[in-house]
Order: sequence, then C-alpha cells, then structure tokens
Amino acid sequence: MKNSLNEVEVFAPATVANVVCGFDVMGFALDKPGDVVIARRSDQKGITIKAVTGEGGVLPKTVDKNTAGVAAKALTEHLHSDIGIELEIHKKMPLGSGLGSSAASSVGALAAVNRLLGEPMERRDLLPFAMQGEKVACGAAHADNVAPSLLGGFILIRNQQPPDVIELDTPEELHCSVVHPHIEINTGDTRKILRKEISLEKAVTQWGNVGGLVAGLLKKDFDLISRSLHDVIIEPIRSVLIPGYDAIKKAALDAGALGAGISGSGPSIFALSTSRSQADEIGCAMHEVLENLELESDIYISQVNRQGPRILREE
Amino acid sequence: MKNSLNEVEVFAPATVANVVCGFDVMGFALDKPGDVVIARRSDQKGITIKAVTGEGGVLPKTVDKNTAGVAAKALTEHLHSDIGIELEIHKKMPLGSGLGSSAASSVGALAAVNRLLGEPMERRDLLPFAMQGEKVACGAAHADNVAPSLLGGFILIRNQQPPDVIELDTPEELHCSVVHPHIEINTGDTRKILRKEISLEKAVTQWGNVGGLVAGLLKKDFDLISRSLHDVIIEPIRSVLIPGYDAIKKAALDAGALGAGISGSGPSIFALSTSRSQADEIGCAMHEVLENLELESDIYISQVNRQGPRILREE
Repeated sequence: MKNSLNEVEVFAPATVANVVCGFDVMGFALDKPGDVVIARRSDQKGITIKAVTGEGGVLPKTVDKNTAGVAAKALTEHLHSDIGIELEIHKKMPLGSGLGSSAASSVGALAAVNRLLGEPMERRDLLPFAMQGEKVACGAAHADNVAPSLLGGFILIRNQQPPDVIELDTPEELHCSVVHPHIEINTGDTRKILRKEISLEKAVTQWGNVGGLVAGLLKKDFDLISRSLHDVIIEPIRSVLIPGYDAIKKAALDAGALGAGISGSGPSIFALSTSRSQADEIGCAMHEVLENLELESDIYISQVNRQGPRILREE
Repeated sequence: MKNSLNEVEVFAPATVANVVCGFDVMGFALDKPGDVVIARRSDQKGITIKAVTGEGGVLPKTVDKNTAGVAAKALTEHLHSDIGIELEIHKKMPLGSGLGSSAASSVGALAAVNRLLGEPMERRDLLPFAMQGEKVACGAAHADNVAPSLLGGFILIRNQQPPDVIELDTPEELHCSVVHPHIEINTGDTRKILRKEISLEKAVTQWGNVGGLVAGLLKKDFDLISRSLHDVIIEPIRSVLIPGYDAIKKAALDAGALGAGISGSGPSIFALSTSRSQADEIGCAMHEVLENLELESDIYISQVNRQGPRILREE
C-alpha cells in the first residue's frame, strides 16, 4: 500500500434505505448515482473544503457544517493526524431525493482521506465517523444510508445505537431502477406523520417480511425476495406525499419488478429486478407515469453496488 | 419405496415457537421430547384411533376431535384413499407446556400414514393437513409449531395465511435446553393479555432482531444469533405468568446460553447453546432455580432437530 499519495479521487454510492419492509433496519447501495470526493495533501493544517460543485453549490464549505468535512475531521482527529488535507466534493446526485446524498459525501470523504493516509483504518471501522457526518446532515446518527454506502450490498442494521451492521451477501443479479420526481419532501415531516403506535398484527406481518427478505438475499431466492417486499406500515402513510405513487409502483411491478417502494423517506421510488434489461424497462415504465403527470424526473438504472466506495484515481 | 407396509411407527419432534424475537413467525424442532405415532392397516375403513397413551390418556379418541385424527383424515381424503388405518398415539411429552404437543401428534400421524401409503406426498406438502389438525387443537391454523415439527430445523413463517414457510439452514452445533415447570397456563389467556397496539420504535427493534436471527442462522454466526435473541414486546408481558422467569433466564445466560426465552406461550423456557455439554449445564442451572422455588419441573436437553419426523420401525 502506497502511503506517499498526494491526491485520491473516490466515487461513493447513493443508497436506498428502508427497502420496503425494512423501515430503519435495511439499506443497499447503488452503482449510480453517487458523489465524487477528492482528498489532496495541503500546506494548511487540518481539514479544509476547497470546493463543492453540483446541486447549485448550496452545500456549506465550512468544515463543521459540511457532512463530509465533519466525517473527515472526526477521522483525522481519531488518528491524531495533523496533516493538512483539502477536500473537493462533487455532488453528482440530487439533494433531498431519498437517495442518501449526505451519506455518499461522508463516505466518499472518509474513503479518500483513509486512502491518502495509507489506509490506517479498515473500511468497516470508518462507520462511526460517517455516522457523525450523518448527524450534521439529518440531526440523527442513523446508519441506514452510511453503512450500505460504505460497505456495499444489502445491509441489515440490527441495532442503531450502538450500531450493529450486518453485511448480507447480495446476489450479483440484482439491479435497481430509481425514479426521482422533482418534488420536495421535508424529511422531518415524513417522520412526523408516522403513527407512534402500530398494531401488533401488522408488526408481525412486517417482521415476517423482514425475515423473508434477509433469508431471500442469503439464500439467493428471488421469488422469496419478491414475496417479502411488502410494507403494511410505512408505505400507506408516506406514499400519500408522492404524486402518482400507486401508479408508478404498479407500472414497475407490471414491468416485472421483484418489488418496489419508497427510497428512504422519498420522494425517489426504487424497484428491484434481476437483469439490466429488465431494470431498463422498469425505469422507463415508472418514468412514463411521471411524464403523464407532467412531473419532471430523473431515472437511474444500475446494478446493486456490492463494493462500496471506489478509488477513481490516485497519484 | 415399499408400498406394501402394514405398520409404521414414527417419532415426531416437539417444537419451540416464537423463539424470543420471532413472535408468530419463527419456530424450531427439538430432538427431545416428542410424540410416537403408529399407523397400521385395518379392516375398518377410514381412520380410527385405537389407542392414546401418556399424559393421563385425556386426549379424545374420536377422530374428528383429535388433532392427529383430523390431520390423518384430511390427508387420506385428499388422496381419495378409502384404505382402513388405525392410529396409536403415544404422548411422550407434556400437554399445555408450550412445546407444540398437538403439532407433534399431527405431524407424527401424517408422516406415519404417508409412509404407510408409499409416500404419495412430499414431506413439505403435508403442511396444510397438519395445520388442519392444529385448528382443532388451538382454534387457529397456525404453522409455527407444525412447520418445524414437519420439516426440522429453524423455520421462518413469513406469512401465516396462506402459509409461506421458509426453511433456514440450521447450524448443527445448536443445542437446546428446555425446562417445563409444572404449572398451567391457558394459551387463550396468553394471547389475550398482549397489547393490540405496540410502539413503532419497539417494533423496529424487534424486526431488526428478527432479521439478525435469520442472518445469524444462515451465516452460522453464533454471536449474531446471540445479539438478536431479545424480545422487547412479548416477553415483558407474558413472562409475568411464569414464576421465577427472570431468574431462570439469568441462570441460563450466566451458564453461557446464546439466548433464552419463553417456548411458545409458555410455561416452558428454552435456551440455545452450541454444545451438548453447555446445554447440559444450562439445563441444570435453570432447573436449580425452579427447585429453589419449590416448583417441580422436567428438563429436556437435545440438539436442535434438523430432520423432522423419524421412522422408528416399519413392517
């Protein structure tokens, strides 16, 4: 491992949290979209943010207010490193889309800085620092976006605090189609509208499906994955905030999706399938519904990312 | 496969349903105790019950009122078989103990009759008939005892109606210690005392643990199994009905159990571990607590049964 690097450029994946039945306990990573973060040695001690591009440049350059800055600073402080590092954060994915934008930036920064320093930390051990970044962005140190962005594949977050993060072997056939309708949903609202009490009966249905989804992934049983992708608790409430939701989901299922649901707290909608060609078809079908509603949207089609962040360049 | 058998004797395993976090969706089979059922060709057409032994012979010999009779009759009717079969049901396990006594009898009868008829049905396809037997015994066609008794190992019941029963590869190291305190609990009451509404927060904790238990079994990760064996919803309510519950559980954990909980709706208490010697120790530790409370109890120590019913004799 080279430890005399001057500059490292990293891609960090967007993520789908919740995954239909797995509210607050499941997430997976996408190969597209994602953020690109550059970490570069600098004469100025500590972490600085040199540039933030994309998404209108609205994200703060102040280290302590920027999710990637906070994460990178927490890591270097932990390592007692006073080396100067400047970050460039190139947002290549929409903010507030339910695709884990802040998590991708944190994870990208951590992977880049860790690499620049000669990889003193195991990938997995970067999680607490990514969660500190998430706290700045979301007010809570949730692991459901950062863990899959960092580790790739499907992740079970058995417990949030302290985080108990389980990597689930992810079948390579799995592809994901995402549509991001250009509407704004406030994440705070999406949590507030949930009922604090739910029926035991529905909870049992839900935890049967969580067990089924985990078993389906580990047994590579796509039919079981499909049967498990039902949400009787969160979707009925949150989907009301997304125009055309039922029709979009139906279009995905009609086009052959294993299942479909809200990505994170929305407004993006994702669908899982087992091939690239099917994922393309499903993406088009979902997009068409939004077009008919005269709502603009982006589509992202990719394999489920199974590796986490990727070094794009180093020198 | 011989199809000119005259008599088949089968052992069918007791089962632990719920499995701490898996209320209504998980169960596993025990190598001890269990029931023994004999199916024998007879001149009298249809199913008759010739004998019921054990447990004071309190179980009905009327076919339509006996769980094993109902199950066997449903199977032969399905097969349009008018062959005469007499059953002997030897109860080798306590009734009302939370160990799936009625399920063991149904499954034993089905396995014996199916074998006697030359195995026209796959093991798995006997499930609906076993569930009909369960309906007579419990008033509801639950699969959480019959499915593990029939299939062996750990079972996820993703959905009850229609039943979606997932076999989870069960690590052979897993052993189970059960204590059955000689007290009576009415299963109806144990369901009635549960709250119909639960907090979303606790439900999330629970389904994280269900996912963790399923992943732990499939990944053969005993530490993960142990971390997942927590119940924040049912145990706090039902354990109140079992004298000394907290002390018994603590004794099991102190003796090295991966986890411990109420078997089914009790009063039996089970603990999982990874070796026979540890299972012995844990059984003794639990038994001692009950002795100190001057409560009589039985102990059962066995490997987790991974094969379901077993032919003991055929001729």
